[in-house]
Amino acid sequence: MTLLGTLGVAVIGAGRMGADHVRRINDVISGARVAAVADLDEGRAAAAADGIEGCTVHTDPAAAMAAPGVAAVLIASPGPAHEAALLAAFERDLPVLCEKPLTPDPASALRVLAAEQRLGHRRVQVGFMRRYDADYLKLKRLLAEGAFGRTLMLHHKHRNVSTPPGFTNAMMIHDSAVHEIDVTRWLLDDEITSVRVLRPAPSGAAPGGLGDPQLILFETAGGRVVDTELFVNCGFGYQVTCEAVGERGTARIGDERGVFTNADGRWGTGIVPGFVERFEEAYDRQVRRWVEAIRRGEVEGPSCWDGYAAAAVCEAGVRAQATGERVPVDLVERPALYR
Amino acid sequence: MTLLGTLGVAVIGAGRMGADHVRRINDVISGARVAAVADLDEGRAAAAADGIEGCTVHTDPAAAMAAPGVAAVLIASPGPAHEAALLAAFERDLPVLCEKPLTPDPASALRVLAAEQRLGHRRVQVGFMRRYDADYLKLKRLLAEGAFGRTLMLHHKHRNVSTPPGFTNAMMIHDSAVHEIDVTRWLLDDEITSVRVLRPAPSGAAPGGLGDPQLILFETAGGRVVDTELFVNCGFGYQVTCEAVGERGTARIGDERGVFTNADGRWGTGIVPGFVERFEEAYDRQVRRWVEAIRRGEVEGPSCWDGYAAAAVCEAGVRAQATGERVPVDLVERPALYR
Amino acid sequence: MTLLGTLGVAVIGAGRMGADHVRRINDVISGARVAAVADLDEGRAAAAADGIEGCTVHTDPAAAMAAPGVAAVLIASPGPAHEAALLAAFERDLPVLCEKPLTPDPASALRVLAAEQRLGHRRVQVGFMRRYDADYLKLKRLLAEGAFGRTLMLHHKHRNVSTPPGFTNAMMIHDSAVHEIDVTRWLLDDEITSVRVLRPAPSGAAPGGLGDPQLILFETAGGRVVDTELFVNCGFGYQVTCEAVGERGTARIGDERGVFTNADGRWGTGIVPGFVERFEEAYDRQVRRWVEAIRRGEVEGPSCWDGYAAAAVCEAGVRAQATGERVPVDLVERPALYR
Amino acid sequence: MTLLGTLGVAVIGAGRMGADHVRRINDVISGARVAAVADLDEGRAAAAADGIEGCTVHTDPAAAMAAPGVAAVLIASPGPAHEAALLAAFERDLPVLCEKPLTPDPASALRVLAAEQRLGHRRVQVGFMRRYDADYLKLKRLLAEGAFGRTLMLHHKHRNVSTPPGFTNAMMIHDSAVHEIDVTRWLLDDEITSVRVLRPAPSGAAPGGLGDPQLILFETAGGRVVDTELFVNCGFGYQVTCEAVGERGTARIGDERGVFTNADGRWGTGIVPGFVERFEEAYDRQVRRWVEAIRRGEVEGPSCWDGYAAAAVCEAGVRAQATGERVPVDLVERPALYR
Repeated sequence: MTLLGTLGVAVIGAGRMGADHVRRINDVISGARVAAVADLDEGRAAAAADGIEGCTVHTDPAAAMAAPGVAAVLIASPGPAHEAALLAAFERDLPVLCEKPLTPDPASALRVLAAEQRLGHRRVQVGFMRRYDADYLKLKRLLAEGAFGRTLMLHHKHRNVSTPPGFTNAMMIHDSAVHEIDVTRWLLDDEITSVRVLRPAPSGAAPGGLGDPQLILFETAGGRVVDTELFVNCGFGYQVTCEAVGERGTARIGDERGVFTNADGRWGTGIVPGFVERFEEAYDRQVRRWVEAIRRGEVEGPSCWDGYAAAAVCEAGVRAQATGERVPVDLVERPALYR
Repeated sequence: MTLLGTLGVAVIGAGRMGADHVRRINDVISGARVAAVADLDEGRAAAAADGIEGCTVHTDPAAAMAAPGVAAVLIASPGPAHEAALLAAFERDLPVLCEKPLTPDPASALRVLAAEQRLGHRRVQVGFMRRYDADYLKLKRLLAEGAFGRTLMLHHKHRNVSTPPGFTNAMMIHDSAVHEIDVTRWLLDDEITSVRVLRPAPSGAAPGGLGDPQLILFETAGGRVVDTELFVNCGFGYQVTCEAVGERGTARIGDERGVFTNADGRWGTGIVPGFVERFEEAYDRQVRRWVEAIRRGEVEGPSCWDGYAAAAVCEAGVRAQATGERVPVDLVERPALYR
Repeated sequence: MTLLGTLGVAVIGAGRMGADHVRRINDVISGARVAAVADLDEGRAAAAADGIEGCTVHTDPAAAMAAPGVAAVLIASPGPAHEAALLAAFERDLPVLCEKPLTPDPASALRVLAAEQRLGHRRVQVGFMRRYDADYLKLKRLLAEGAFGRTLMLHHKHRNVSTPPGFTNAMMIHDSAVHEIDVTRWLLDDEITSVRVLRPAPSGAAPGGLGDPQLILFETAGGRVVDTELFVNCGFGYQVTCEAVGERGTARIGDERGVFTNADGRWGTGIVPGFVERFEEAYDRQVRRWVEAIRRGEVEGPSCWDGYAAAAVCEAGVRAQATGERVPVDLVERPALYR
Repeated sequence: MTLLGTLGVAVIGAGRMGADHVRRINDVISGARVAAVADLDEGRAAAAADGIEGCTVHTDPAAAMAAPGVAAVLIASPGPAHEAALLAAFERDLPVLCEKPLTPDPASALRVLAAEQRLGHRRVQVGFMRRYDADYLKLKRLLAEGAFGRTLMLHHKHRNVSTPPGFTNAMMIHDSAVHEIDVTRWLLDDEITSVRVLRPAPSGAAPGGLGDPQLILFETAGGRVVDTELFVNCGFGYQVTCEAVGERGTARIGDERGVFTNADGRWGTGIVPGFVERFEEAYDRQVRRWVEAIRRGEVEGPSCWDGYAAAAVCEAGVRAQATGERVPVDLVERPALYR
């Protein structure tokens, strides 16, 4: 590894997620360092870069990518800024880890897809970090081994304690359900072809106008049916579970773990408060795999196609929220680069 | 109890279910005895009555009800025979425990409803035995206490090892999902207003033509959304679970229990093979409560209205299987006797 | 069953346990009725017998056993009164269900053993009700099947919320650990040959002088080692677990069950408050099996030998509490009647 | 961190454990690199160092510690070689991570203790990696918070699939139970004052002469009682659990986790095959914390005192195996450096 030297990374976006990635690359991941940080708010970029030897500070993403020692890019800016950042990285042919979403809508995702195809090789890993969670990985392996036959259904549950101010029905799809969209496609190796959203009378804990919880239903090209309970103001904790139903067995992940106590007439354990606690290890593993692949000269993981497909399903999902009816998902033909 | 004497029961139908009730009333339930058995197949009735002192044998249900010592009727004949047996019991004003279904379709159920109303008081308890399962009872109590706020959703799973020959899609609704229909109405104290059925590509283990598994979706008058995974050839065991999602918490029943073992690289426990093992205690409690109520001069439990409503939802469910679309459930106005 | 008529039972002792057995025999168990009740406190006997047709009331146990219709005896009086009641039943050669302890000490137990041997056949079932608990029965069957090889160790836990006033260290053995003593002997089909008791610094919740919790250690003739955590003021609930360690696997019973909830940052379920809730079904099954066996002309279940052996281990256990050292258990040779 | 440069580590011992630490320091831990490897077998040292830029190869531990760039030492050689290596590190005042045992017996441990005291400050972290396991850490925190009152007892289980050839009874204490010895002292912040070992008739799967399983009992200065089931040929998997019993509640760690399946009539999950899978994350965290502390100029974690106390309890434990009696543990007075 030291033969290659340490991988210099330009981090684009120094908000909560970007700052966390700066810490991760510098303190946790072996063989990588932050070489440049860019944020529209220069002070925020400087704060993130503080104390890191040789790390430069920028307001322009392209300038950060051009900084000395930069050999890879991690995009953690807001979704609407992703397209420009990705195209800038493509110009320098740099490997990219792009936080989800790839871009906010299918049209812009298709432009990125076209640009990457012009490069002629994959450069982008999209930040669907659940693919790096130890339990999801075991579930994927178990299904792939085929001991339970074909997978027929998936049942997802996705529960958050509460939503921040301004959280909308569309964000329930784009920010929350997008994880189940990607996990569904990845676990089943199958495309989602339609979306329905059933909305019960909302919880009294839901902010005005938010239809919380919702039951989201996918059908896939391979004939699978997938349901997701999405409940983003459940109050009691952060809980993500997935049960796969095969022809001869089922497999479930996401049960609570840790310290089990007897006290006050109750037996049980605590529920983690949020996604950071639940998926911290997955975030680390995601970045570690990305760094390792780059050092081997490879690009792995969720591709721009996965980012595009997720965007297309999200768009259909938002329309399905409005009507309660089945909304088909129409994808373009899958380019050769992503087969 | 001996002050009242032992309750003499006429058992109508001596098939598997009827013979089991004969055994239960005679050997398990205190304060009741089988006074008469009727079955179209006289030999089968005689076999069930064999060795029971003073128990008479009949081919005509009405004759059994008129036999000496009969003070109550348990109907366990095939569903199409229920209407006639119920009307015969009404003529003698006898309390009845009628195995589900009350009758096979809403029209005949409405005729029974009308006949019972002419009597002017409830005589019928319908055999929805899950209402007598210890765990469902605890769940019902927990939801009623309101600690979790309003119940917003239910998730049911109903899995059987395999189906007998000749099992049809309609039977998936009428024989299997009917339990979730009743439990949903009872737990929520709410009426089901529509049904959807989503059908994945069927399991290779499903007999030809059977769409197994299915995802059945109910909406209720109170705005709840309810999903049921129905998988009747799952192969691995009999499993019935229910999770209620409230505004501030969820509650789940049906997890495996018993002896937990470490062996051969696995930790876990056995799954019961069928409904007899899972609900044996519920069957006992159901009949015990029925006998106790009669001895107090009362009729309790699921009513003819519950039987009618279940029949109406089943009818809609079978139509929903065919179309994949939302099918509304239209109930008549609820008569005063059943409010 | 009605061919034989209903079994008339004389219940000796109408305290909490006796009154509960009166209720059970009359209301729950098919084929039996309470024919006589005896208690030193005649009013208490009368209260228990109230409303039971043909049930006579006595202060003298022998008189109750001689009452009309009595064909079996259930002894639920205090332990010191058991010997006289058992001998009275032997005079009439009546089958007996005797609540534990058989008698309070090995010497008196040996006198009962001698008396039963003079009868020449077993008449007594001792009320070690855990042998009738569904989970202990499954565990027993699993070990007997031998899939895990020889059983090498047992780990018991026995926890109560709190102790009544006047509860002593000796009662921790005689009233609480006696269940683990019997279960150990029964599961392993092996005799306990020594006892050690380790006493940590007691919990602040233990009444003055009570060494609570304690770790009780048995060795058996077959070379097994058995530990029991006995904690009778644990505060949080009633919890009884047992793990058997075999050569190729382990098996555990007693995990919490029922309704599992997510709420307030916790996942889990309730713990039962006491032995009634935990073992209610075992009490019912114990009496049902006793009645069924009598009606077949048999005596089954834990014998006077089991009662004697438990008394001998208890006596050694109390001595072991005082010294902290290994105290051997010396049993007389097992009479032919109990082999 | 880059301000400080990367920490150069000399790894002493390139066997299985040493080679794994080389990989960990180089590929997993941020901010550290392997600067030198020493092994009596030079080829083995060279193999471990292969491909690591600037890493020198040695047969003499002291030479490795003197190599360019070495600022810390990780000792993973066999236990008997530890004393010399530690003294060599002390001569250079280098911070050390010393795999357990500190030394194989209390006398040599006391010599190390004396040498470190002459330095006047702590230099050694002993490799009791369970203190870095996420669940043990949570349990420690929970007990420290005091919500369950004083801790009264601990129940440990330590099960391995099977033992390598030549595994002895003494190794059951020195290699296996030593972990429970350290965890007991650490969780309770209390010293072990006596050991008993109860030995059931051994499993048929135990190699000749090995008394497997064993029940090991500790008493502590604070009056706690601690039991450990040690079963090193259990056959079914690697399983480490710990339950702490407090005055008002209990807390347990070590339950199986991961993917829960329904299949073939069983519900459950897999058991990990060995300690690598179970404690991989703890090994990583142990080394990471060590590196981070050094870079802050500190030494943390289990000290030489902990290594000495463990050796003293092990010595008593081996004597207790032979006699079955209570063997006291006599520690020297705790030096000021370790208070």
